[in-house]
Amino acid sequence: MKVHILTIGDEILIGQIIDTNSAWMGQQLNLQGAEVIEITTLSDTRESILEGFKKAEKNADVILITGGLGPTKDDITKKVMAEHFGAGMVFHDETWERIARMFEKWGRSTTEAHKNQCFMPQNAEILLNKMGTAPGMWFQENGKVYVSMPGVPYEMKYLMEHEVLPRLKESFPAEPISHRTILTIGEGESRIASRIEKFEESLPENIKLAFLPGMGAVRLRLTGRGGNAADLETVLDAKKAELETLIPELIFGHGTETLEERIGVLLKERSLTFATAESCTGGHIAHKLTTVPGSSAYFLGGIVSYSNEMKMRQLGVQASTLEANGAVSEPVVQEMAKGVIANIGADISLSISGIMGPGGGSEEKPVGTVWMAVADKDRVVTEKLTIGKNRITNIQYASVKALDLVRRFLLKHV
Amino acid sequence: MKVHILTIGDEILIGQIIDTNSAWMGQQLNLQGAEVIEITTLSDTRESILEGFKKAEKNADVILITGGLGPTKDDITKKVMAEHFGAGMVFHDETWERIARMFEKWGRSTTEAHKNQCFMPQNAEILLNKMGTAPGMWFQENGKVYVSMPGVPYEMKYLMEHEVLPRLKESFPAEPISHRTILTIGEGESRIASRIEKFEESLPENIKLAFLPGMGAVRLRLTGRGGNAADLETVLDAKKAELETLIPELIFGHGTETLEERIGVLLKERSLTFATAESCTGGHIAHKLTTVPGSSAYFLGGIVSYSNEMKMRQLGVQASTLEANGAVSEPVVQEMAKGVIANIGADISLSISGIMGPGGGSEEKPVGTVWMAVADKDRVVTEKLTIGKNRITNIQYASVKALDLVRRFLLKHV
Repeated sequence: MKVHILTIGDEILIGQIIDTNSAWMGQQLNLQGAEVIEITTLSDTRESILEGFKKAEKNADVILITGGLGPTKDDITKKVMAEHFGAGMVFHDETWERIARMFEKWGRSTTEAHKNQCFMPQNAEILLNKMGTAPGMWFQENGKVYVSMPGVPYEMKYLMEHEVLPRLKESFPAEPISHRTILTIGEGESRIASRIEKFEESLPENIKLAFLPGMGAVRLRLTGRGGNAADLETVLDAKKAELETLIPELIFGHGTETLEERIGVLLKERSLTFATAESCTGGHIAHKLTTVPGSSAYFLGGIVSYSNEMKMRQLGVQASTLEANGAVSEPVVQEMAKGVIANIGADISLSISGIMGPGGGSEEKPVGTVWMAVADKDRVVTEKLTIGKNRITNIQYASVKALDLVRRFLLKHV
Repeated sequence: MKVHILTIGDEILIGQIIDTNSAWMGQQLNLQGAEVIEITTLSDTRESILEGFKKAEKNADVILITGGLGPTKDDITKKVMAEHFGAGMVFHDETWERIARMFEKWGRSTTEAHKNQCFMPQNAEILLNKMGTAPGMWFQENGKVYVSMPGVPYEMKYLMEHEVLPRLKESFPAEPISHRTILTIGEGESRIASRIEKFEESLPENIKLAFLPGMGAVRLRLTGRGGNAADLETVLDAKKAELETLIPELIFGHGTETLEERIGVLLKERSLTFATAESCTGGHIAHKLTTVPGSSAYFLGGIVSYSNEMKMRQLGVQASTLEANGAVSEPVVQEMAKGVIANIGADISLSISGIMGPGGGSEEKPVGTVWMAVADKDRVVTEKLTIGKNRITNIQYASVKALDLVRRFLLKHV
C-alpha cells in the first residue's frame, strides 16, 4: 500500500504552524506496513489542490488529506474534492443533527456556517468525528482511496485510529508485520548502539532495529516482516528477550507506555501515595503525572513553590538553608522532599529546583543547573543535573529525569 | 517569487523526525515577500527525487532542497542533481581543504567518505557552510534557481541566513508583503466568521483574512500584498483597527504573543502577584505560566490539590463544603481561590476543579464538567465549563479557558 499524505493550508506554507500531523500519520502507517511515498503541503487554492490530487494519484494507492474542512471561506477542500470527482454536493442530515445536538448541549446556537459544513460530496462515505464538527470523508474512485480529515490534530488522530486505519487494513491486506518496542532511559543513542552492536549485527534479514530518540529517552523498535505470522512473533519475542538482557537497567517499559504511567503502576503495586514539590519545572511534573487516567488513586497533589516564601511556608524549608545554599541546592531539595512527606502526608515525594534560563544563571550555578530529590519517611536520595540553555527544553528534560529518579528509587528502595 | 521547498529523507516519511525546517524556511521566505507554493517531502531514491524536481520546476521559480547531503550511502541528492542537469562531477579543492583543516584541528583523521563529499556537480556554485562539512549548492538553469542545503537544522539556517536569502533578494526583487495577527479567545471560528462577515467581504483584493484556530483560541491574520509599501502598512493598520472594533472583547493579544505572556504583562502593569489552586488541570496551568521567562516576578506558585485532603489541608476548604457539594462545585472552587489568597498571600488567585475523564463522571456531573474561580481579597468570580470527553484535550482546553478568566478579571476588576 503506497500512501501520499496531502496537507492543505497556507498557515503551514508560511511557517505559522509546523506540520506535526504528517509525522504522526507516517508513524502509524509505517506500523501497519504501509509505505508513505510522499508528503505534500499545498496552498488552499482550488488550482493547487486539484493539481495536487492529480500528482498524488499517479503513484499512490491511498491519498490521505488533512485540513481545509473548517466552516470558513478559505476551507475549500470539500468543494474541490467534489469538483475533482465530478460529484454534486448533498446535505448530510446526520452530521447536521449531531452538530445541532452538540450546540444545544453546550447551550449555544448554530450559525449558517455550521449548516454549510453539512454539505458533502455525494460520493463520500461519511466518517464520524466524535471530536469535532467536521466529519471525515472516505472516497473510492478509480481503484484509489481518498480520505479527507480535519487538520486539528486530535480530530485527525481520532479519525485515523477509529475509522481510517482499520478500513485501510481491510482494504489492503499486507504481508505480516510486527513490532516490539522497548523503552529506555538513562543513556544516549550512540552509547546504547555501541552496547548492542553485536546484537544488531546478528539480526536476521527480515528483522530491523530502529533507534527512536526522544526527550531524555530512547525507544528501541524491532520490526519483523514477512513469512509465517506465528513464526515472526516467535522470533521477535526471542530477539526482544535477548536485547533486554543487554541493557536491563535502562529499560522502563514497553510499547506505547509512558514513564508517568510506569510510575503509576509501580506505586499502585506497592500501595503507595505520591506527591511533588516543584520549583523550576513549575508544575510540569504534576501535569505529566495527572495526564494518566486514574492517577488520583496514588497522586495526592503537589506544591509548585516558585517563590522562596512558598518553599518555607508550604514545605517547611528553613530560611537559613535557603540563605546558606541558595534555592538551587542539595540541602533545599532535601528539605522540600521531606516537607512534602510531612505536610501532604504522601509515602513518596519528589522535589526539584533549578535554573531553567534564559536569565538567573551565575558563574557558580549556570543556567541548566538542577537539583532533585526523592524521599520516603526513612531516606532522601538526591541527584544533580547539568542541562541546556533552552527554557522549554530544560523544563521537559528535567521533568523526565526527575520521574526516572522516582522510578529508580521505587525499584531500589521500596 | 514562487518557491517550492523539497525535503529529502525517509526518516520524515516514516515519522521518525518532524520536519521543522520547512516551517522555518516558510517563515523567512514569507517575511521577504516570497510565496511558498508547496512543501514536498520525498523518499531518498533516485526516481522520486528526479520526479520531484520535474514536478517542482513546473510552477516554481525557486526550488529549495534540504537533506541527502551526508556522507552515507542513502545521501544521494548531489548525484541526482547532477544527473537532472546533465552535469559532470568535479572535485572541489576548497571544500576538501576546509574539511581537512577542520579535522586536523579536532585531531581526527578524514575518511574516504569525506573525500567523496567534495565531488560537486560542475554547474554548482558552492555556498560556504561554516557549520558543517557539506557545503550548500546554488544552481541557475532554465531561468530557475535550485539550492541544495544540508538537512541539519542549524546548518540549513546558517546557509539560508548568510547565503541563500540575500542572493534570492537580489535575484527576485519582491512586491511588498505585510501581516497583522490578532489573537482572540472566547468564540469559535464560525461564530467569529459570522460576526465579521461584512468586514471580510469589504476587504480589498490585495488583503486576505485567514482564520487560524488553536486550542480554545482563534488567530485572525490579515495579509496585504503589492503596491506601495507605505500605503500597504497604512491600509493594513486601518483594517486591523476596524476588525478590532468588531470583536473587542475577544482580543487578548497580537502577533506571536501567548495568553500566559499576556497575563504576565497585565499582572506586571498592575504590580500584582498571582498563585493557583489546581485540581483537574493537575499543574498544567502553573506549567503554562512558568514557561514564560521571568514569570517568577509575579507568579508565586501553586497548589495542585489533587486529593480532597490537600484541598482541606493546603487550601482551607471546609470538609462540610466538600461533603455538601462535592469537589467539583462552585462553593469548592470559591473556597480554593480564597484559600490561595489566605495561605500563599497572592494578590490574585485562580482555582479550578473538574472531571476530565475518562472515568469519574456521573449523571449530575458528567465528564467535562469544570468549575473555576478567580479571586482577589475583595471578590470571587466563578464560571462553569462543559467540555469534552478526551482527558488530555480537556486539561489543555480548561487551562486556556481558566487563564482567559484571569485575563478578563484583571481587565474588569483590577
